Amino acid sequence: MRAVDLIEKKVNGEELTSQEIAFLVRHFSDGSIPDYQMSALQMAIRFQGMTDRETSDLTMEMMHSGDVVDLSDVKGVKVDKHSTGGVGDTTTLVIAPLVAACGGTVAKMSGRGLGHTGGTIDKLESIPGTQVEIPIERFKEIVNEIGVSVIGQSSNLVPADKKMYALRDVTATVRSIPLIASSIMSKKLAAGTDAIVLDVKVGTGAFMTTVEEAKELSTLMVNIGNMLNRKVVALITDMNQPLGMAVGNALEVREAVELLSGKIPEGDPLYEVCMTLASYMLILSNLAKTKEDARKMLAKALYSGEGLTKLQQMISAQGGDASYLCLDRIDELCQTKIIKPVYSLKEGFITAIEAQKIGTAAQMLGAGRATKADKIDPAVGLVMQKRVGDYVKLDEPLCIMYINDASKAKAAEEEFLSAFTLSDDKPAPAPMIYEIIGG
Amino acid sequence: MRAVDLIEKKVNGEELTSQEIAFLVRHFSDGSIPDYQMSALQMAIRFQGMTDRETSDLTMEMMHSGDVVDLSDVKGVKVDKHSTGGVGDTTTLVIAPLVAACGGTVAKMSGRGLGHTGGTIDKLESIPGTQVEIPIERFKEIVNEIGVSVIGQSSNLVPADKKMYALRDVTATVRSIPLIASSIMSKKLAAGTDAIVLDVKVGTGAFMTTVEEAKELSTLMVNIGNMLNRKVVALITDMNQPLGMAVGNALEVREAVELLSGKIPEGDPLYEVCMTLASYMLILSNLAKTKEDARKMLAKALYSGEGLTKLQQMISAQGGDASYLCLDRIDELCQTKIIKPVYSLKEGFITAIEAQKIGTAAQMLGAGRATKADKIDPAVGLVMQKRVGDYVKLDEPLCIMYINDASKAKAAEEEFLSAFTLSDDKPAPAPMIYEIIGG
Repeated sequence: MRAVDLIEKKVNGEELTSQEIAFLVRHFSDGSIPDYQMSALQMAIRFQGMTDRETSDLTMEMMHSGDVVDLSDVKGVKVDKHSTGGVGDTTTLVIAPLVAACGGTVAKMSGRGLGHTGGTIDKLESIPGTQVEIPIERFKEIVNEIGVSVIGQSSNLVPADKKMYALRDVTATVRSIPLIASSIMSKKLAAGTDAIVLDVKVGTGAFMTTVEEAKELSTLMVNIGNMLNRKVVALITDMNQPLGMAVGNALEVREAVELLSGKIPEGDPLYEVCMTLASYMLILSNLAKTKEDARKMLAKALYSGEGLTKLQQMISAQGGDASYLCLDRIDELCQTKIIKPVYSLKEGFITAIEAQKIGTAAQMLGAGRATKADKIDPAVGLVMQKRVGDYVKLDEPLCIMYINDASKAKAAEEEFLSAFTLSDDKPAPAPMIYEIIGG
Repeated sequence: MRAVDLIEKKVNGEELTSQEIAFLVRHFSDGSIPDYQMSALQMAIRFQGMTDRETSDLTMEMMHSGDVVDLSDVKGVKVDKHSTGGVGDTTTLVIAPLVAACGGTVAKMSGRGLGHTGGTIDKLESIPGTQVEIPIERFKEIVNEIGVSVIGQSSNLVPADKKMYALRDVTATVRSIPLIASSIMSKKLAAGTDAIVLDVKVGTGAFMTTVEEAKELSTLMVNIGNMLNRKVVALITDMNQPLGMAVGNALEVREAVELLSGKIPEGDPLYEVCMTLASYMLILSNLAKTKEDARKMLAKALYSGEGLTKLQQMISAQGGDASYLCLDRIDELCQTKIIKPVYSLKEGFITAIEAQKIGTAAQMLGAGRATKADKIDPAVGLVMQKRVGDYVKLDEPLCIMYINDASKAKAAEEEFLSAFTLSDDKPAPAPMIYEIIGG
């Protein structure tokens, strides 16, 4: 078998066999298929696509390229949630403890943020003392004790994806639905989970810019999951503005604490997306029969404070100082040298907020990384004061910026303001959740 | 400017600017754009194509990636001929001296054979003493003295093509018409020629398998030439069987000597393709007005023996022993340990001969290289005894094989026989020349 013949086969739109996909992934992983052949193959896949069977085979091969976590000695249905990458997306910090409070089992491995999207691991590290690199045996103990733990991915989880993604990033092959699906699913499966709720973001700056594309990706991931005996539901949610109001690490932890303290009302986008994701996590865990039942259980866990308690227990178990995680003390994590409102340059109705630019503005303040080596400032970021559909006057701030390095403020402010489109007419309201696939 | 953005632009079917193409070729040549980005770009080009303007820019940039031969101190219109790679294609050894005998100027750089196709340089080296690596100043002197010289390409001629082709060969991006056109034309232009007659082969095993594809490639190369102020004519010729009867280095030299000695009749495919190619070379050199005039001049040069004399003069000037180049002595170059007929396994009309397999059979005997490092045996090969349309009986040989290493004979014979398709019905005759573009 020669890689060049398999590339030619894909160029001609033919289906690769399981053996051929195994050959390609294994020999790319061991270095005997060089980068330039893999990048040509990935480009051919970008043009010709892959069948569900090919994508499922690719996912399996990638999954087995490194460590596969064995969670069989963790009791209960292990349920995970994955977002395709958003801005102001604090959902994990809300729903992981809420689902655990309802009796669910959340043994979750998360990533760090890169570019304009945040990462749960970085947010956890903004709570003093919190450890995210925990031996797998201790991780399983915590999950068995309190029902939830969130740690960083082991360095040898799906090394094939690391190599393939690094190439895709520099060869214009990121935007391929089967390659996105296999990248996401291989990591989730290698992390040992039984059931997965996917949050597929749609909007400017998201991987998927149209609902149609998002539907295609979601359907594919649900199908792959089913082929590999995992229960998968995908929500297609809006990323045409940041999901929550906070963008930045400690600021997002604060918003999660506010939500878990009952301070964010029903109908708020972050609240609604969290409740819907968590509902499906309970359903896939066989803890609720209907969305209505699930929502009642979750509301009870939320308003009784049990969800916040779970978050505090998890942080304590991971070595963090959970005493910050209450409305009285959480502001202490968000102290910066400068706290400054940013005003609109014009008046009008906000018709669009490019989430990617908001994320980039926060990153420029130090909340995110441009390259993997960059260090994060946990306290900085911004808190939105307006959403799409709001009317804004010249003396009303669009956000409050939390700044430590004043020299970075001007460029971040310009990037932030460039995200807004204003109009004299109030826009029609857009849905928060477009569609649910597999539910 | 970032390579990844330019790849994305091409993926989206947009036209790259001259500056962008320059950026890509220059930085790939200097190593700052890595192989994996170039292979992704080439794959995107295979799918999305290039405009004539893009291909012309690419050709120019590739041409200037290394040495550009200056033939301005060689008198006359420098005319070249290029074939896209055939089997039994002895045309250069016939038409270069014939055109020179008619007053033309042929300063030609040729390649070596690789795989199933032969190379003129290897054929020249089968004549004892002949030098093909000659300093450029001496090469120009020979051309000025006798009107013709054929040497190997300088090692620094279009290094970008060498790098790009090596990648294309292993990433399934050979079959892209703009990439083939820019590869051929950049080398011809860097060799300093004013006018080019292209022989674009069509058939099983040729780069181009359909006349439509060959027409597209030919038109593109003629357009590129015109954009860059070169006169270009392309002939689309048949490669559904070997062009001449001989396949092998000295054997092909013998066939050229036979043709130049008047022993191959008008109407024979090698004769006709040679005469047509040479006619256009005379027309582009302003030495003939019409094809009819040109053909008369060429026939005169051929039957007077002036063409053969030019070949002998050229070989002498390049240090070779020209005394072999006559009917009396040429057989001395074709002496092998075994000379053996190969018989058909069935009777019937020959409806097809896969030229690629015939070339591979000769290569297996030692006439060609599987890799660049392989050494060639100049005497071995085969001489076809039958052509498409002929009826073959069981006791009639299909070819005579010239063998030095008996251990290689069986596999070569099997490969040779697998090239033939026989039928009870006589096939309709196929044209030798399908079309002439730019003439």
